[in-house]
Amino acid sequence: MDIFEKAIVLHEELKGKISVENKLDIKSTDDLSLAYSPGVAAPCIKIFEDPSKVYDYTIKGNTVAIVSDGSAVLGLGNIGAKAAIPVMEGKAMLFKRFAGINGFPICLETQDTEEIISIVRNLSPVFGGINLEDISSPRCFEIEERLQDIGIPVFHDDQHGTAIVVLAAMLNFCRMTGRRMEDLRVVVNGAGAAGIAISQYIAKRDESTRNQKIVRDMIVCDSVGIIHRGRTDLNPMKIELLQYTNKENFEGGIHEAIRQADVLIGVSKADLLKAEDIRTMAKDPLILALANPVPEILPEEAYAGGAFVVGTGRSDYPNQVNNVLAFPGIFLGALRARAPRITLAMKFAAAEAIASGIQNPSRDQIIPPVMDESIAQKVADAVYQVCMQPA
Amino acid sequence: MDIFEKAIVLHEELKGKISVENKLDIKSTDDLSLAYSPGVAAPCIKIFEDPSKVYDYTIKGNTVAIVSDGSAVLGLGNIGAKAAIPVMEGKAMLFKRFAGINGFPICLETQDTEEIISIVRNLSPVFGGINLEDISSPRCFEIEERLQDIGIPVFHDDQHGTAIVVLAAMLNFCRMTGRRMEDLRVVVNGAGAAGIAISQYIAKRDESTRNQKIVRDMIVCDSVGIIHRGRTDLNPMKIELLQYTNKENFEGGIHEAIRQADVLIGVSKADLLKAEDIRTMAKDPLILALANPVPEILPEEAYAGGAFVVGTGRSDYPNQVNNVLAFPGIFLGALRARAPRITLAMKFAAAEAIASGIQNPSRDQIIPPVMDESIAQKVADAVYQVCMQPA
Repeated sequence: MDIFEKAIVLHEELKGKISVENKLDIKSTDDLSLAYSPGVAAPCIKIFEDPSKVYDYTIKGNTVAIVSDGSAVLGLGNIGAKAAIPVMEGKAMLFKRFAGINGFPICLETQDTEEIISIVRNLSPVFGGINLEDISSPRCFEIEERLQDIGIPVFHDDQHGTAIVVLAAMLNFCRMTGRRMEDLRVVVNGAGAAGIAISQYIAKRDESTRNQKIVRDMIVCDSVGIIHRGRTDLNPMKIELLQYTNKENFEGGIHEAIRQADVLIGVSKADLLKAEDIRTMAKDPLILALANPVPEILPEEAYAGGAFVVGTGRSDYPNQVNNVLAFPGIFLGALRARAPRITLAMKFAAAEAIASGIQNPSRDQIIPPVMDESIAQKVADAVYQVCMQPA
Repeated sequence: MDIFEKAIVLHEELKGKISVENKLDIKSTDDLSLAYSPGVAAPCIKIFEDPSKVYDYTIKGNTVAIVSDGSAVLGLGNIGAKAAIPVMEGKAMLFKRFAGINGFPICLETQDTEEIISIVRNLSPVFGGINLEDISSPRCFEIEERLQDIGIPVFHDDQHGTAIVVLAAMLNFCRMTGRRMEDLRVVVNGAGAAGIAISQYIAKRDESTRNQKIVRDMIVCDSVGIIHRGRTDLNPMKIELLQYTNKENFEGGIHEAIRQADVLIGVSKADLLKAEDIRTMAKDPLILALANPVPEILPEEAYAGGAFVVGTGRSDYPNQVNNVLAFPGIFLGALRARAPRITLAMKFAAAEAIASGIQNPSRDQIIPPVMDESIAQKVADAVYQVCMQPA
């Protein structure tokens, strides 16, 4: 059986990969009277009198909603709410496995931006955080942006999870090669949710990150080619990218873009590049070829072209760029601090914690392995520290 | 410590009475690849191709949303979404404890009828059923009614849970005393969600229940007094009650209503009646005094007035009328049958299963004790049988 057949068998056997369990065994009517009526009235009244007590008496402080509308699920596209449930259950498993957090799948029938915003807002009482997942671009940006005021963190993992791990890999690439972030020439291929978030993290100067080293020389490509000022087909997110990328206004395609680049980050599609393309890059480049399941270039091919380090999204090669290194710890730290939102400073702290999770980064291990259980705690501690700093 | 102090300690200790747990231990990247990316794509695609497969590969078939807007929580009134969470978590515990069902609390910030209907509709993909809870009357009727077409059962427990157990008690009262349902004179005191549902069950003739024995002589009182045709202050639900209650158009208060009545069902408030009031009823009446925590009349007082059997909502007296006897088994049967809604016939079958859960009903045990674990399974079997009958 291949992995997909095995997965079908597993899902059919389990009929749901998660379950809701009681933390107290109800053995008698006395137990019932404490956990339910009439005793339960006491914590209800306390919360009514002081809403912050909801964190003391309920699941809120350790529970995250995993919200999707099924519009951009894995690489499968718009398969809808029901077909998205297995992914969201899997995500819930990762929350529990790596951070002890209760994740619960909320898969919405609607794909209307206004409705999704309103529903998430109205659902927020029970949850300590909202993980948006697999919502198509550019709606995902507006939905996340407009939910930043609901009092609990709202975090679109497809944007930030990958971007944080990419940043961690770049930090260790600089450590290993003695290069500085601000001297790197970087190309991002793909201008969807992840590509835009990565570009913002790496190259956008922001009030909250003024001490951060940012990349000054960066080009973003989409499926048409290099994003430059002469193009008339750009959406608002891509136009905004031009404020801090492609300063020399290069034109052309991905092959032109990567000439003399130190770093190539692919969040696009399979089999775009060959060894000879890598040879046109600067010496010893970092290649993060993250298209799934087949990367933009396979590691053996990239190394043949002179790559210094290659990372992919796959578990069967070294250097797996997987957002499971980021989101469990980020939510754990934010929940512990009862942070109202997840700031760029918290995301940078997470990237640094992931990078320093490897004592001696090597070509075969530039970022920690996904099963390293210590990472989520390190990320949580770093995120928590940022929250506790005076503004 | 009294029960309320103990409940506070318990809730503070647990910080959430339920948790989301993984049914599979993720020990390796291989496990990850099956439960999450890339393997998870296989069940996603199967569900996309055939949406009914969502029951084979996800939690849907065994998961119920417990939805409240916090507008009528226990006897506490409109305490809001956050303060309602401890109750909904307790309800989730009962679903797991008695039926093995995953219940998850959904407490909504909005109390707008249209918004609640739209949210529940949009949330439905993940859930196999919706348990509406502690939503104030009369909005609860409209919300439940208008959600009957979403393809999964939507059941407002405050209406039906109590009504089903009351009907079970009446069935056994008839068994014990040799009386017939259609000869009983019944008074319901209280015309909120539960009172109206009870009245409908007992006295309303309905296409789906044409073989059911119904009560022909029935009076409903609200806080003003007997609901009769001369009143100008009635809401539409109460006006509809007059189609099948108070045929002789009696006027007056509860004291006038109960004269010569065989059954009194109180879903109103504490300390309304005394022993001498019970003496005005027919010989050997059934008294179900369900106001919580203090009933309309205490059992010792009602027995002093000549009651044959007394039930309350309390666990410290015999004959506790508790909807935990009904809802876990009803949802379990409906989920097993993948029923699109819960019909009156299913509810009657549930009441009969609860009643026959006691071999020899007695004055101290007219309905099964709430901790009787066999009841939910019996109710589920009876409900399932109804679903499987040809229409």
